[in-house]
Amino acid sequence: MRRGGATSADVVWMESALRLARAAAVRGEVPVGAVVVREGRIIAHAHNETVHRRDPTAHAEVLAIRGALDAVGEDRLIDATLYVTLEPCAQCAGAIILAKVATVVFGAWDNRAGMAGSVHDLLRHPRLNHRPEVIGGVLAEQCGELLKDFFRARR
Amino acid sequence: MRRGGATSADVVWMESALRLARAAAVRGEVPVGAVVVREGRIIAHAHNETVHRRDPTAHAEVLAIRGALDAVGEDRLIDATLYVTLEPCAQCAGAIILAKVATVVFGAWDNRAGMAGSVHDLLRHPRLNHRPEVIGGVLAEQCGELLKDFFRARR
Repeated sequence: MRRGGATSADVVWMESALRLARAAAVRGEVPVGAVVVREGRIIAHAHNETVHRRDPTAHAEVLAIRGALDAVGEDRLIDATLYVTLEPCAQCAGAIILAKVATVVFGAWDNRAGMAGSVHDLLRHPRLNHRPEVIGGVLAEQCGELLKDFFRARR
Repeated sequence: MRRGGATSADVVWMESALRLARAAAVRGEVPVGAVVVREGRIIAHAHNETVHRRDPTAHAEVLAIRGALDAVGEDRLIDATLYVTLEPCAQCAGAIILAKVATVVFGAWDNRAGMAGSVHDLLRHPRLNHRPEVIGGVLAEQCGELLKDFFRARR
């Protein structure tokens, strides 16, 4: 994994994901945002909607991936990059693998559920049939603080 | 994990999941079926729809889990059992954990992507915050043959 190997474009796209995460917080949703970028533009974006949809699986990543598949009209995202403000969980790592997302760039590490190395590394599992490029820790502090502030305010 | 610890009721519900898997094959979908059972009745059912939806994440388990969450009007399935004809992949194991499904009963083992022990055991991962009861290998031969026949016919 490249850590700190993010380009300035990566930072710009992560800022877009962060704006979505902030919008989620305003709506009472856990502040995680995601954008899918292909050929230099955002083709899908989402934030967590677990509260609104009353669906604990409605994470930003899977919503953005489904949107991106719709947008490209194909069944894989082999030339797309997913930017997400939090390290993907098992479900989202699995969806990334199924959709063959080329590159994953994430913000904060998730010590409780992260599947890009924190709890386990599903994204680079040697026995699975797709292994995206992964860049972790981009704008990690801002992405993580947003989550901490959200949960602190709810206690 | 209980293997071969299935009850006769488990076999009956797995037969329902198998019927859905057979219906999937007829429609050109990878034959995997799933039902969610709560208080002795099926509250949601689905089969793979990856072809029809052109969405590689549209696995039977996640579709059935979303249907079951809708049916119960809650954000967790703590008293429900998911029956699925194939060992869940990473995405589906992750969704099972997020939705806190009480029990998972599956049919065939999946040596390529199974996350209930074949490739990795996400469902009983000691660091994740939900660990369902898991019963594997129920009607494994029928569930597996259906998949083998499907892929053999497409070669």
